[in-house]
Formats: sequence, structure tokens, C-alpha cells
Amino acid sequence: MTAPAVSLAPQRVLISMPGCEEATMRLAIPLGAELGHAAVSHFPDGESYVRLHTPVHEAEVAIVCTLDHPDSKLLPLLWLAIAAREGGARRIGLIAPYLAYMRQDAIFNMGEIRAAEHFAALLNRAFYWLVTVDPHLHRIAQLSDVYRMPTAAVEAAPAIAAWIQTHVHVPFLIGPDEESKQWVEHVAGICQAPWATLAKTRHSASHVEIAELPDIPPRCVPVLVDDIVSTGHTLLAAADLLRRAGLPQPICVGVHAVFAADAYSRLCAASADVVTCDTVAHPSNQIALTEPLVNAISRMFDLPLPVSKQMLV
Amino acid sequence: MTAPAVSLAPQRVLISMPGCEEATMRLAIPLGAELGHAAVSHFPDGESYVRLHTPVHEAEVAIVCTLDHPDSKLLPLLWLAIAAREGGARRIGLIAPYLAYMRQDAIFNMGEIRAAEHFAALLNRAFYWLVTVDPHLHRIAQLSDVYRMPTAAVEAAPAIAAWIQTHVHVPFLIGPDEESKQWVEHVAGICQAPWATLAKTRHSASHVEIAELPDIPPRCVPVLVDDIVSTGHTLLAAADLLRRAGLPQPICVGVHAVFAADAYSRLCAASADVVTCDTVAHPSNQIALTEPLVNAISRMFDLPLPVSKQMLV
Repeated sequence: MTAPAVSLAPQRVLISMPGCEEATMRLAIPLGAELGHAAVSHFPDGESYVRLHTPVHEAEVAIVCTLDHPDSKLLPLLWLAIAAREGGARRIGLIAPYLAYMRQDAIFNMGEIRAAEHFAALLNRAFYWLVTVDPHLHRIAQLSDVYRMPTAAVEAAPAIAAWIQTHVHVPFLIGPDEESKQWVEHVAGICQAPWATLAKTRHSASHVEIAELPDIPPRCVPVLVDDIVSTGHTLLAAADLLRRAGLPQPICVGVHAVFAADAYSRLCAASADVVTCDTVAHPSNQIALTEPLVNAISRMFDLPLPVSKQMLV
Repeated sequence: MTAPAVSLAPQRVLISMPGCEEATMRLAIPLGAELGHAAVSHFPDGESYVRLHTPVHEAEVAIVCTLDHPDSKLLPLLWLAIAAREGGARRIGLIAPYLAYMRQDAIFNMGEIRAAEHFAALLNRAFYWLVTVDPHLHRIAQLSDVYRMPTAAVEAAPAIAAWIQTHVHVPFLIGPDEESKQWVEHVAGICQAPWATLAKTRHSASHVEIAELPDIPPRCVPVLVDDIVSTGHTLLAAADLLRRAGLPQPICVGVHAVFAADAYSRLCAASADVVTCDTVAHPSNQIALTEPLVNAISRMFDLPLPVSKQMLV
């Protein structure tokens, strides 16, 4: 008689926060992870109630929660991490395809705070690792400057480049401002496409002015590339500049489909197409990042276990 | 020549979170406090932006933020506390006339968490003291069991008793369930009025059954007293029991006007009057707690200063 085979790998459990169910399902199968079930609801006074139904004792747990509109998500997310910890999870990671507060990365006026750092401090206490997609790294050079845990910043550039190569015959990539240079340059390098960035002057949250337009060879299709599309003002100003120069309508490609108010419909009207990655669920999602996310998450699940990791919320 | 008189007392600054402006103004004058000014707004992607405009260097600062619907208030509240700390405030206190999460005070089912404790832990890191009104102390016996800072739980009972004595000729006080006993007994003791509590069976968040009615002497006006009025189901069930017993419509008195959905209009229809304290701004607020709050806050402002207090959010 032989003993039954025993798997030495710990069980992997993925738990979705409300709204991330589809993203969680996409990731679970290639990760060989069980879909955990948690009830997340609200009491009549607005307090969050959380109950983790799936046993997670000794499991490698990850919570999937994309962090657009983060304020109302934070407490139930922390409660769920605590429930997993109290349920005996070996480690609890956070999969936040869109990571919040990274743009509040400096104090511009007296009385402001660097919220990126303080938001990170709250997550640092609850999670053991973090996987995200293209965080807005500008004045914060790398995630490890504020996140004191193993982090992975998955790059959307290869998937965006592949989409452009498949869908655009002769692309000319344009970053609508200097901050977008890192994404545009990277994508263009993979596509082997020409690229440029525009000079932007932001007068207010809703008023953006763009000067100068690069020479775009005839027959090229302008492809505007940015990381976060929220108000869309930056992309709209760039599209308007192209229109006034008599160029064809651009294709707008964003990593994160945050889209505030009527941004999406206005962008659609000004572009040949509006395309985003699937980090925030939205009708414009055409670029799947499942594969690079699975690779990054898998590496986190397999991190060697240290002697102890105190997690206090 | 004599030197100009120098005040040794540190400046007191009260800062309102959005929605608490009136409560803050009511408290500022009797406290001799300056009204601080802070901008609290949201970016298009839902992130909170906070900027403290009033200088608070070496000041005793208090932030006024009643914590109904706490999830979306927490981050801007923490950001404001951080802005005050970075602005050099001597100490930062929290005035939360309604304190959140106190009802999640035990684990009833596997996979739940004791959110009261974890919510307290988040505030513990940001504030030096806490003043609230009648927190829901049930399975948590006292605030200091979860709040590791100086706390004051202002009692609404004296003000409620004074209101009843002024407005109700021959009151009979009724607590709609056993948990309300502490408030009813206290108020009745001050009023010198007869009282009783009802036996409640809660079938679900929206289904409450009340058995047994005490003997209420004729000519008495039933006054239902509870701490938090949210769905109103408990008070409605009690009012219905009184109606079926042929008693006059009760007066409903609550401490905290949380009122979910149509609770207020339904309670108004079932009662002679619906009266609350001013801990959560609401049309039913008839009982002012300014005086006891000012006394409690003043004692906090005057706490002796320790060598150091580390506050990490």
C-alpha cells in the first residue's frame, strides 16, 4: 500500500471585493486558486459588514480590489483582510489593478499632505504583498518608497503595444503631456513606432492647454497614450489640437479606465476609438492583462515564508 | 513701562469636516476656539483632497466629524488630522458626537470581525483624545476597552430628561428593548418618571417582534427612548404594540438621528412626535447637547501635556 499523494503547496484563495468578481474569476483558474466567498454589505447607517465564508486556515490568500473611488472601499477591504488574518491565513496579498492616491505624491501648497504615503501606510498594516498595474510613478520614483512590503508593478505596455500592432496599420504614438512620456516611450519601443509627447499647461482640474504639435508623417494614425483617463481633459485637448491641424481622429489608449462624469462619451466623440486595459471594469476595456497579472501574483504566492510578519490594522 | 499681557493658554482651533459646520460653530464660541478653515474635496476619480488653511502651530486642535456613514468620511478625516499634525499642532482631538462601528462589538458568526475594535485602532493612530455622545456600549463595556486615548462619553440623559419634563405632562418611559435599558433607566431616574423595557426578538435587520407590554397607568403619555434610531424598526414595532393596546400615540426620543431610508417619515406617522439630540444634524433635532459637549471638550483641551505622544497613521 502506498500513502496517498499529499500536495505540499498551500491552498491559494482569491477573494473578490464587490465589483471585482469578473476580474477575480479571470485570475483564479490560471493561478490554480479557489474562489473564496465573502459577504460584504452595509448596515442602514452606512457601516460596512463583512463576513468571510471560505475557510482560509494556512492558505495563501489574495483579495482583488481595484481602487478607483477608494474612500468607500477602504474599510470593507481592511475588514476583509482582518477576517482572513483571523481565519488563520498564511499571508494576505492585495491585487489592486488600479492603485489609488498615487497622484497625491507631493505637497504643492502649505496645509496639503502627501496622501500617497499615508494611504500606503494604511495598506502596509493589512497586507503582506501588493500587485498592481502601472501605478502613477512620478514624484514617487518606485512603489517601495511608500509601500513597505513586496510589490509588483505589472506593465501594461507589452499588451498595449500588441493591441496597437494588431489594430493600427501605421501608428504614430503621442503622449498628451510630459508625465505620459514613460508609457509612450515604452510602448513605442515595443511597437517600433515613432512617438512624441506634447507640452501641457494645466490651468485647473478641468482646464488644460496644449501647445505645439510634432510633425506627424502623412498616412500615420495618431494614437494618444496615457496611464489614467479620469476627466479626459488632457486627451480631449490633445485630440482637439490634432483636429485643428487637420490630422485624422486619434485612437485613445489608456491603461486605467477611471472615467469621471461624461468623460467617456466626450472622448468617444473626439476619437476614432477609445481603448483601455481591464484594470477598472469598463465598456472600453479591450486589452486584457490576465497573463502578466497571473505571473506577478504567482510569484507573490510563492515567496519564501519568513519567520513572522506582524500585520496590525 | 509694563510688558504686554501674554496669554499662556495655547490657541484652540476647531475644524469642521463637511456637514458639521453648524455643530462646530455652536461649540467654538463657548470654547473660546478659533474656527479653522480646511478645504475637503474630491478628485474626479473619487480620491479625497484635503488642505488645511488655518495655521495650527502649537495649537490645541479638534476636528468635528460626526461618524454616521463613516466609510466615506474616514480617509478625509485622517488626512485632515495628518495635515494638522504636520502643521505643528500640539495635540489633535476628535469630536464625534455620533461614533461609528460600536454596534459591531462581537463576533456572532465565524468569519465576522469585531469591527468596533479595528475602527478604534484606526482612530487611535490619528487622534490624541476623543469626545463622543452616548456610544453604543453593550458588549464593549467602556470606550477605553478599544480606544487607547483619553475619551469622554457625554451623556444625553440629563438633556433628554429636561426636554421630557418641559414637554410631557405625565410621561411613562419605555425602552423598546433590553439594550435600551441603560438609557431609559437613567433618563427616568432624572425625570422621576415610571419606566419599563420591552422584550424584543430581532428576526433580521428589518423584522423585529416585540412581546409583552407593561401596565401603563391611564393619563400617562408613553415616551419611547432609544440611543440610535436607524431603520426605526424597533421603535415602530413598539409603537405598534402600544397602538394595538389602545394607548395614546407615543413620543419617540432618540439620541442619534441616523435615520435610514424612510425611517423618519414612518416614525412620524406612528408617533405624536419624533425628537432627537443634535449629534447628527436632522430636522428632528430638538435637544441641544452644546453645554455638556463644551464641558467635556474643554477638559480635553486642558489635559496636561505629556512628554511625547507618537501619532502614526
